[in-house]
Amino acid sequence: MIFLFTDFGLEGPYTGQVQAVLHQQAPGVPVISLFADLTPFDIQAAAYLLPAYSNGFPPGSVFLCVVDPGVGGARPGGVVKADGRWYVGPDEGLFAILTRRAHHVECWALPHPTTASPSFHARDVFAPLAARLARDGAFGTGPVASTASALPEWPDELHRVVYIDRYGNAITGTRAVAVTGASTLNINGHELSRARTFTDMPSGMAFWYANSSGLVEIAVNRGRADRQLDITVGTLFELY
Amino acid sequence: MIFLFTDFGLEGPYTGQVQAVLHQQAPGVPVISLFADLTPFDIQAAAYLLPAYSNGFPPGSVFLCVVDPGVGGARPGGVVKADGRWYVGPDEGLFAILTRRAHHVECWALPHPTTASPSFHARDVFAPLAARLARDGAFGTGPVASTASALPEWPDELHRVVYIDRYGNAITGTRAVAVTGASTLNINGHELSRARTFTDMPSGMAFWYANSSGLVEIAVNRGRADRQLDITVGTLFELY
Amino acid sequence: MIFLFTDFGLEGPYTGQVQAVLHQQAPGVPVISLFADLTPFDIQAAAYLLPAYSNGFPPGSVFLCVVDPGVGGARPGGVVKADGRWYVGPDEGLFAILTRRAHHVECWALPHPTTASPSFHARDVFAPLAARLARDGAFGTGPVASTASALPEWPDELHRVVYIDRYGNAITGTRAVAVTGASTLNINGHELSRARTFTDMPSGMAFWYANSSGLVEIAVNRGRADRQLDITVGTLFELY
Repeated sequence: MIFLFTDFGLEGPYTGQVQAVLHQQAPGVPVISLFADLTPFDIQAAAYLLPAYSNGFPPGSVFLCVVDPGVGGARPGGVVKADGRWYVGPDEGLFAILTRRAHHVECWALPHPTTASPSFHARDVFAPLAARLARDGAFGTGPVASTASALPEWPDELHRVVYIDRYGNAITGTRAVAVTGASTLNINGHELSRARTFTDMPSGMAFWYANSSGLVEIAVNRGRADRQLDITVGTLFELY
Repeated sequence: MIFLFTDFGLEGPYTGQVQAVLHQQAPGVPVISLFADLTPFDIQAAAYLLPAYSNGFPPGSVFLCVVDPGVGGARPGGVVKADGRWYVGPDEGLFAILTRRAHHVECWALPHPTTASPSFHARDVFAPLAARLARDGAFGTGPVASTASALPEWPDELHRVVYIDRYGNAITGTRAVAVTGASTLNINGHELSRARTFTDMPSGMAFWYANSSGLVEIAVNRGRADRQLDITVGTLFELY
Repeated sequence: MIFLFTDFGLEGPYTGQVQAVLHQQAPGVPVISLFADLTPFDIQAAAYLLPAYSNGFPPGSVFLCVVDPGVGGARPGGVVKADGRWYVGPDEGLFAILTRRAHHVECWALPHPTTASPSFHARDVFAPLAARLARDGAFGTGPVASTASALPEWPDELHRVVYIDRYGNAITGTRAVAVTGASTLNINGHELSRARTFTDMPSGMAFWYANSSGLVEIAVNRGRADRQLDITVGTLFELY
């Protein structure tokens, strides 16, 4: 399977143009949109979502990852093999947390493209590569001595909201396993307790919990946490 | 074919995560998103849309139906076979109108899951089941003595808006065949006549008509009924 | 491959209902949503997008094109074969620019349907036809003497915004190859220079460039052109 992890949206042309390349060059391989509404330009938010939302998929899965404000400039492109899964996309930090957490990592830097559209490397460079990885299960003849952009200044657990879902739940860059027990989460002056899931809380009450992909998520039972707590992507919080 | 009938949205991770399970466990079966923007928490609205929008599909079709505010709590999950089509999802009323109208119905209650994520039974329980139904065309060895939640207090025809489409048309829980002839529809003080379709009315005029799935729909030719008549999901109306 | 080029949106029922018809009647043919958020009723905007966004795809591709405010009325439906690609949909001008630019064109007028829903010819008329074209690669026994609606009063290059993408970039109905060199673009009193791509401009600065499908596009590096320049679909501009 090929997974799309982008800020393209689904309704305009970009996801469709990329899917067409994938279907032409890797016929019969299912293409699944995992995220199409990553926050434009926010590479860090995407970097913390990527390992949490790709970990569960089988070895050989290919992730086409694009949050690419630097497209057409000097920024490098990269291919990462992490614990048997493939990742392709612009390399300005998008793979930094993924590679930090993986047990086995190989990386390849891509040459600067000469014929691609300067504004759509996803269609002209990364999608053909993703198709080839899905088809062949290999990249080139051996690992090139290279690492993905590492960004050591980014913390292991990011105390920042990285995504707001359709229900208004706020997904964060912090893994629930890294939080000791029943810690309190403070966001915008609201003190939130931990719960197991929505129905354990009274209707309208805010809380945090370990979401179905292992991240700390801020939610309101039968309500919208984003509006009730005035949260957007980028809002910071504390745990204690 | 497997149809998704949910409130997940398409752009975030949930539809993609469910599609991945379906492609892995029912390879080669087309997966189609029928509704991804059902109103969160509004089980009743979804219940009146489900028979209207699933009736036309062939026997053997599988519908993964999820509006699930009670996920992780004590609410039951269910499988319904109605007139040859399969339906899987949380059973708090979502299947009540479907089963009331179908000619031949079998129901199974699902055991409370022990290993699933308490916030994502769609991925961990219902999608694997939908894949199995699409693959095998059968559930277990025989019908268990069980019925879906029946909600007899819900009317046969619901005089309430249950969905607003991209054009601002308001779809209702009332079947057009249940309305005598040229009845007048009153919503928010506006009296609307019946028409055959958009182009039979002057530009900018509101009306109601039998939509392409057999439901009463409130519309404006070349305009948005939701804004012009101040309608949202949940707005009530009268027919006389 | 079958491409959807519509104003249906993806999250409600219409795209799914059309996809179901296509999967049933052309099994195994990939169906790709190219545009699902064309501006309702704006046939002209769609007409200038269609050749730019369909040109790159291989002969035999089928485009199901629906912006159809006249559905159910007397407006004709049509099939167009242009440079080896197939196009099906309502014919009120949607194919006018496509056929003007193509080297080899054949057109067929469709008979007025008698059994289709008066509000959903896409599902009942155009999708079955698109499936048949994808399957058979031919339409009928020979070209009928007919042309698509030509609209000669529409200019070759339209100085009007025809689409706003998810990033707030404004795509226009003007081909970049038709613009001499470094022309200045004036929109809402803002004078914009031409650039190669986003990263060639300072952050926050508006410019225009030749987008990845060959159209003049108005953008802001790391910003939203629609908000910064107060642009919507329909905004006019000048080039000099």
